This record gives sequence, structure tokens and C-alpha cells, in this order.
Amino acid sequence: MKVVKTIKEVRENVNTWKKEGQTVGFVPTMGYLHEGHGSLIKKAREENDKVVVSIFVNPMQFGPTEDLESYPRDLEKDSKFCESLGADLIFNPEPEEMYKDGFSSYVDMSVLTEELCGLSRPVHFRGVCTVVSKLFNIVNPDRAYFGQKDAQQLAIIKHMVQDLNFDIEVIGCPIVREEDGLAKSSRNTYLSAEERKAALILSRTVKLGREMLEAGETDADKIVEAMKKNIETEPLARIDYVKAVDGLTMQQIKKVQKPMLVAMAVYIGKTRLIDNTIWD
Amino acid sequence: MKVVKTIKEVRENVNTWKKEGQTVGFVPTMGYLHEGHGSLIKKAREENDKVVVSIFVNPMQFGPTEDLESYPRDLEKDSKFCESLGADLIFNPEPEEMYKDGFSSYVDMSVLTEELCGLSRPVHFRGVCTVVSKLFNIVNPDRAYFGQKDAQQLAIIKHMVQDLNFDIEVIGCPIVREEDGLAKSSRNTYLSAEERKAALILSRTVKLGREMLEAGETDADKIVEAMKKNIETEPLARIDYVKAVDGLTMQQIKKVQKPMLVAMAVYIGKTRLIDNTIWD
Repeated sequence: MKVVKTIKEVRENVNTWKKEGQTVGFVPTMGYLHEGHGSLIKKAREENDKVVVSIFVNPMQFGPTEDLESYPRDLEKDSKFCESLGADLIFNPEPEEMYKDGFSSYVDMSVLTEELCGLSRPVHFRGVCTVVSKLFNIVNPDRAYFGQKDAQQLAIIKHMVQDLNFDIEVIGCPIVREEDGLAKSSRNTYLSAEERKAALILSRTVKLGREMLEAGETDADKIVEAMKKNIETEPLARIDYVKAVDGLTMQQIKKVQKPMLVAMAVYIGKTRLIDNTIWD
Repeated sequence: MKVVKTIKEVRENVNTWKKEGQTVGFVPTMGYLHEGHGSLIKKAREENDKVVVSIFVNPMQFGPTEDLESYPRDLEKDSKFCESLGADLIFNPEPEEMYKDGFSSYVDMSVLTEELCGLSRPVHFRGVCTVVSKLFNIVNPDRAYFGQKDAQQLAIIKHMVQDLNFDIEVIGCPIVREEDGLAKSSRNTYLSAEERKAALILSRTVKLGREMLEAGETDADKIVEAMKKNIETEPLARIDYVKAVDGLTMQQIKKVQKPMLVAMAVYIGKTRLIDNTIWD
């Protein structure tokens, strides 16, 4: 497995593979990899001849008051993890390699990006769409793998790929959870022992919503209200949002439908965590 | 030469060529082709194994009061012209093939797009960047050819390709003029006989600016003022803008420099025409 820092090196490797007729699977990440990322790399490994993982904490998708500086990084551990899963290439650029002086282009979307996380993180999805477009153009993969924990991001990337005609298959993979239910996230590392316990309110609340759906509840508002009440029982938790939205358009819905996304963002102390369930 | 209407057919053709190791040159156009387009197709023919021409009047780059409906179209004549120049494939999609229901992504730029034509055509360059990104992803060319008549567009596309890491070489080709100097344009067809004569004020004024530069004038404002005065001698002409800008950033400059773009947009009757000279 190679670790490269430049766009040129990625292209050289991928062009060689493509000339040999090999397919390329791509897993874009911000590093500090966990089993959630691992499931994406494994799936990419199964479905492609070559696997590229990018590790890049993308400044453009962080707001001015967010955790860009403190976002956890451990390239050595990440490299070993990727190698153990059979990745062929890690692309780990410096910000200057991705955003040269005078950088001023962006990719964005007039729907999907405004609801849910887009409300509290207004520049976030523009940063995501732009960096993913760049990475797609650099890596030129046949397939790209994203986690369903970031369900809105996944919907946005799928829509972007369709709108802008990227010749890439986008594959979503299920949320991977800790044994006690907490969705795996690089940001879980911010949690104190006490907060780590409190953070279980997210997965427990997702489970509550899921159970109401499975019991046949058709009123989306009732589900959301029950979920909000449940989160409010946890003193360390502060709701950013809990919402039921159309699974494709991300627009809020009143009546349960398929596909539907029930998603939440909740602060545990200063750490903003997300979780969701997809009903389809 | 094939003429195809679907993205799928373009991909099938290009993928076959790429597997054979053939290079692809691409000339994106809005059709109603003239010798200006011809020069791009010829250059693409010289430099690549295969040549793709797209003919698509892109609704997204027209403002609500602009000439989308009346923009001239003649696919049969265009096809013969492309074939005579050795093109291999024309891509002539319907708007519905390019913009499916729910289309909502866009590519844009926070600089370059605001000056010159961007001032009087505020949505224009977003439409251009978006459709060119789409066409690049559909055609997957090695090289793409644009005319220097649309100098700002050329600068924007070059910048976008660099920012978003399209693996495509963008090549600008000189303005092609009628014998009397008028820059070739599909919109020249709108001109009445009287307007056609009046339209010579553009190329004559560009020539005047060029002569001042060659004579060593260093004050950009003086050149622009002399050009404006010259245009005002033509009763059928109404200035949209005449400006001297940095050749890369499109920002207005006071002192002559290289590279510099001296560009104008002038209405002749209801027809908006552009012309320019590049000083480098």
C-alpha cells in the first residue's frame, strides 16, 4: 500500500491501473478511521480491483466556529488500518495541495442542503460537494462509498453525481455502532466518560423512533415529538434538530412514507453528534 | 460521423475509444456554427485521435429576458460542417436529457464571474460552469477547445478546471473575423443590413485600443475612454461595458500590464455583441 501526498501521484497510479482495465473503488474520509470507515473500505475491497482511501480534513466544510483545528488526526494508525483491510493507495494531501492560491470555484445545490445539518452548518455541504467533486476528478473511481450515518450527505452526493453526470456509482453503507449502540464517529473521541454515557441517548432515541414506525405509527410529528421528549430526559444533551424528512428530497414530512429519513443532531456537552434511521 | 442525443451513447463511444488508447478532443458549442467554431474543430482534429462536438443551447446560461428562444439553430447545416472538418461525434441533447426533473446542482466561482459580462448577465457564468462541468463529465475529453472571443468565459473555464481538478487541457483559440473585421458570432444573424454595418464599430474600436497599446500607451483608463468615445460615434450602438482588466483575474486595472484583456459588450439595436483583444 502506498501513501501519497500529491494529486500527480494519485493520477499516475490510477492511470496505470485504468490502462490495465482495473476498476477503482474510492472511500473519501477525514481520517481518524473507525469500523464505520472500515466497513466502507471492506465493501470497496470486495467490489473493485483497486481501493483508494483519501484522508483529508477538508477546511472548506467547517464553519468558522467549528472544530477544524481540534479534529482528531492519526495518519500512522489510519495507514495501518487501511493496509490491514487491503487498500492499495492512501491520498493524504496537505490543504495547500487541494486549495491553491486563488482557489474560488465551488459546487453546491439549491435543495437538499438547506434542511437538517444545512440549517446549523450553512457552509458545510458546499464544502462537501466541492471537495468530493475535486476528489472524484482526482481519483476517477468507478465506485465511491459513503456511510449512511451522514444520510443527508449521502443523499446530496447521489444527487450531485446524477446532476453533474459523474460516471461514478455511489454506494451507501449502513451505520456501524459500538456494542452499546452509539454510532461510530471520529468525534466520539471528544467525549468525556460521563458524556460518553450520555451520548447513548442518540441511539436509544433512534431505536424508539424505529419502534414506533415498526408498530405502525403514521404521524411523523408524533414520532419526532416522542423522540425529542426522550432526548430531553438526558441533562447533558441539547437538541440541534430531530426531523422526519423525505428520503430523497430531505424536505420535512408530516405523514410517514417510504423512503423516509428520521435524523437528529444533538450536542452532548460541546460535541455535536448525529444519528438516524432510514425507513424504506 | 455520428450524431447522438443521449449521454449513454456518448459514453459508449468515448469508452470504446479510450479502451483503444485514443485521445479525445472536445468542442462545446451552442450550434449555428461558423468559422470561429470551425477553427476550434480543426485544432481539435489536429491534436487528437477523436473529436467530439456538442451542440446544445444551454437554458441555464440565459437570463429570463435573454434570447434563449430566438437563439438560431440549424442542426443539419451544423452536422455537414462538422463532418466536413472531420469530427467523429456530435452530441446534440434535448434540454430534458441534460436537466432532469429535480435538477438542483450548480458549479460557480466567487471571482472572475462578477466583472464584465457577469455584471449584465448575473446568472450566465453559473450556467456556463455547470453545463461545461456536466459536458466534461459526459465526454471525458483529454483536451477542450474554447474561443478567445469569449475571453472571460475562457479564463473562467481555465480557472474552474484548475480549481476542481478536471484532468483536461483547456485550449483557447484566436478570434476569427469576417473580412471586414466583425468577430464571427452566431448572434450576427440577428443583425439587419444597417445594423450589420454599424456592428463594425466593435472591431474598429478594438483595433483602436490595440493601436494605442502598440504605440506604448500605459494608462488603461485613457485607452478605455478613447474606445468609449469611438463607440459613441455610432448612433445604433449602446455600450454595455468597455473595460481593461487583468488577463487572469478579470479585475479592473488602471495601468497597462501583461496579461491584460481589453473587452467590450455593445448593443447594436437589440443584439448584444462582444469583442476583445488580449495583450500578453
